[in-house]
Amino acid sequence: MAEAPFVPPARLLLGPGPSDVDPRVLAAQAQSLIGHLDPEFIKLMDRIKTMLREVFGTANPFTLPISGTGSAGMEASFVNFLRPGDRVVVGVNGVFGTRMTEVAWKLGGQVERVVKPWGQVFTPADFGPALAKGPAKLLAIVHAETSTGAWQPIEGMAAVAHDHGALLLVDTVTSLGGVPVEVDRWEADIVYSGTQKCLSVPPGLSPLTLSPKALEALKVRAASGPVFPGTTPPPSNPNSIQSWYLDLMQLEKYWGSDRVYHHTAPISALYGLHEGLRLVLEEGLAARLSRHAKNSAALWAGLAALGLKPWAQEGHRLPSLNAVTVPDGVDEVAVRKALLTDYSIEIGGGLGELKGKIWRVGLMGHSSRIGNVMRFLEAFAKALGTQMKLPDVKPALSAAEAAAR
Amino acid sequence: MAEAPFVPPARLLLGPGPSDVDPRVLAAQAQSLIGHLDPEFIKLMDRIKTMLREVFGTANPFTLPISGTGSAGMEASFVNFLRPGDRVVVGVNGVFGTRMTEVAWKLGGQVERVVKPWGQVFTPADFGPALAKGPAKLLAIVHAETSTGAWQPIEGMAAVAHDHGALLLVDTVTSLGGVPVEVDRWEADIVYSGTQKCLSVPPGLSPLTLSPKALEALKVRAASGPVFPGTTPPPSNPNSIQSWYLDLMQLEKYWGSDRVYHHTAPISALYGLHEGLRLVLEEGLAARLSRHAKNSAALWAGLAALGLKPWAQEGHRLPSLNAVTVPDGVDEVAVRKALLTDYSIEIGGGLGELKGKIWRVGLMGHSSRIGNVMRFLEAFAKALGTQMKLPDVKPALSAAEAAAR
Repeated sequence: MAEAPFVPPARLLLGPGPSDVDPRVLAAQAQSLIGHLDPEFIKLMDRIKTMLREVFGTANPFTLPISGTGSAGMEASFVNFLRPGDRVVVGVNGVFGTRMTEVAWKLGGQVERVVKPWGQVFTPADFGPALAKGPAKLLAIVHAETSTGAWQPIEGMAAVAHDHGALLLVDTVTSLGGVPVEVDRWEADIVYSGTQKCLSVPPGLSPLTLSPKALEALKVRAASGPVFPGTTPPPSNPNSIQSWYLDLMQLEKYWGSDRVYHHTAPISALYGLHEGLRLVLEEGLAARLSRHAKNSAALWAGLAALGLKPWAQEGHRLPSLNAVTVPDGVDEVAVRKALLTDYSIEIGGGLGELKGKIWRVGLMGHSSRIGNVMRFLEAFAKALGTQMKLPDVKPALSAAEAAAR
Repeated sequence: MAEAPFVPPARLLLGPGPSDVDPRVLAAQAQSLIGHLDPEFIKLMDRIKTMLREVFGTANPFTLPISGTGSAGMEASFVNFLRPGDRVVVGVNGVFGTRMTEVAWKLGGQVERVVKPWGQVFTPADFGPALAKGPAKLLAIVHAETSTGAWQPIEGMAAVAHDHGALLLVDTVTSLGGVPVEVDRWEADIVYSGTQKCLSVPPGLSPLTLSPKALEALKVRAASGPVFPGTTPPPSNPNSIQSWYLDLMQLEKYWGSDRVYHHTAPISALYGLHEGLRLVLEEGLAARLSRHAKNSAALWAGLAALGLKPWAQEGHRLPSLNAVTVPDGVDEVAVRKALLTDYSIEIGGGLGELKGKIWRVGLMGHSSRIGNVMRFLEAFAKALGTQMKLPDVKPALSAAEAAAR
C-alpha cells in the first residue's frame, strides 16, 4: 500500500551538514533524465570536472565526483592505495580521523595513529616519528574536522609525507567551497570532499582529485597486479583493489576520454552538482570564502556577547563548523530540541567523546548568511535562556551585525 | 569560471536504463532538504523500508536502499558475506554475471563460474556439480540479465544452494517493479536492485534485502571477527568486512531502530525513491507487472511484423529489456545514432561479446507505455529502413496495437 506523500518541513539547516540548498540546485535536480552515456551527458561530466578542478585549486586531470557520499570518497582514497599489511599513518583528533583508521583497518592496513586531543590540530613535526618507524603508503589527515570545528593547516604536510615516501591524503569534506582548499599548492596527493557542506549540493557525491604522483602509484599497482582474466579467475589476488565500485582506474576510464561503461552515474545528483558548482564560481571563490569567514566572525561576536566559548584550538577554528562549548550544567539536547521544534532550526550536537560537551553550528554554503546568524542567535538565546541566566540578546545581535560589516 | 547552465535535451529513454521518470518523482527531488537525522526524515526512511518490502515481496526486517547505484548493491552483497579464500559459485551468462565474478575476485574470493551462452538461462541442476565440489558461501545469479534480455527463473535455486550450505544471492536490478520479484517465495537470501530501471527513479540508490538466514550469517561473522578497537587497531583482521561504506551491520544500525550515525544519507534521492515507490503501489504491483508484459508483447508483435528476431532464449525473455537481434550486414551503431539524433530516442547496443549483435530496447517503469512502443516502432523502421528493405511499418503498428489491447 502506498504511504502518504512526504512533504518535508521547512528547516533552517545550521548543523554539520547537509546545508541549505539554493533553489537553483533543486530545480536543476528536477530536470528530466537523459542517458548516462548520452553525448550531452558526457558534456555535463566534462564541465563538472573542469569546475571541480577550479574549486579544488588543482590542475589534476584526475578530478571527478565519486557516486557515493563523502565516506565513499574516504573509502575510495584508502582502498585504491592500501594493500593488506601496508602501513598508514593517520592523524586522529576527532570522529573523521578515527573513521579513517577504521576504514584502513577493515581493508587490512596496519594503522599507526598519531593522536591529539579533540579540537587541537597537528604540526608536520607531529608525524615525523610515526613516518620514520617504517615505510608507510599514506599520511592521512582531516583538513576540517566536522566533529570538533578544528581547522588543520596543511602547509608542510606534503613535505613530511613525501620525505618518508608516503602520499598525502586529505579529507576536505567540510572545507571545500567554504575554506581555502589549494590542492596543488599543498602538493597533496589524494583529496576528497562531500557535496552537502560548503558546496550546498544535496548529499550523495564525493568529489575526489589525485595528483600525478598518486595516479602514477595507481597505474603501477594496476600494472603489477593480476589482471582479471574473465574466464578463469586465479584463486588469489593480493595486489588487486578490494573494491569494484570504487576502483579509481575503472572510474577514470568511465569519466575520462575512453568513456567505458562502469556503473550508471547518478544523473539527477550530477545535474545538481553542476548547478551548485556554477553558483560557487559565479559568486567567485574568494568572495565565497570571505563570506564564510565574515559570517562566522559575526556568529562568534554574538556568542561571545552571550558568554559562550568556542571549543576548538585558538587560531584554528573553522568558519564553516563552529563548535560551541556547552556551559556547565546545561542539557544540550534540550536546547537542540527546542531549536528544532520551536524555531525549525537544525544544529548538531557533539559526537563520540564530545557528546554533551559541544554544539556544532554549521555556516556552510547557502546557509552562511548574516540573516541566518541573527535568526540563530535570537532563537538560541531563548532556548538556552530557559536553562541559565543569559545576558540580554540585543547587544549580542548588535555585536554580530557589527562584525559582519 | 562558471560553465553555462545545463539543460538536458528531451529524450525518450528506451535503453537499458535509466528509464523515464514520472514528473512527480522529479518534483519530490526538488523539495528543500532536512537533516538526515531529523525526526521527520526518520519517518521517511521507515516508509521507504515498508514500501520496499512490499515491492520485493518480503517480510525481511533488513530491507533498505544502499547509498550507491546497483553496482554498489552488488558489491555490498559480496563484501559482507565473502572472506578472502571463500568459494562462491556464480552463474555467468552475460555482463552482470561476469561483473559478479570480478567483484568477488577483487575481494579475494575463489570464484567458480557456471557458464551458459549469453541469452540462455540456467536450471537449478546446472549448479549442483559446482556446489558439490566443496563448501561455497554463495550461489549468485542474475534474475534479469540487462545485457542479454534473458529472464532467469529463480524457482528451485534456493533449494540447490541451501542443500549445499550456500546462501542464494540474486541480482534484480532490471526486474524489480517490472517483472515478478518474490523474495520470500523464492527463499532468496541476499537480493539487491537499482532504482533507475522498472522503479523509474533516477540512478543513485540500490535497494537491498536480507533473509533472516543471511542476517544471521552477518551477525555470526560480526561476533567472531575482531572488533575495531579504536585506539589500538590490531595488525591484521582476516574476518573483518573489507568495506566501511557498505558494511551492512553498520547500515542496519543507521536504518534500524538504533539510528546510529553512519554516513549522510542522500536526502534528495530518498525523496525521489519515496515518491517512486508510492507510484508503484498506487498503480498496484499486479497491474504494473501486467502493463510491462503487455507493452513488451506489443513491441514484439511490431518487431516480428518488421521481420526482426529476439535474441534471448524462447520463453525466457524479459518484458523490461527486449534484446533485438541485429540483422546481418546492418550497422547497428548507425541505427542507434539516428534514433538519438533524429528522433531523440535512446536505446542500447550490445555489451561485451554481444557488441554489434543486438539492440537493447528497454520498456521499464514510466517508459513502458504503448505510445512509446508505437513511437519507437515508427522511428526504428525509418532508421533501419535506410540500411535494408523492410516491410511497410503500418501493419507492424497495427499488430503492436492489437497485442496491447
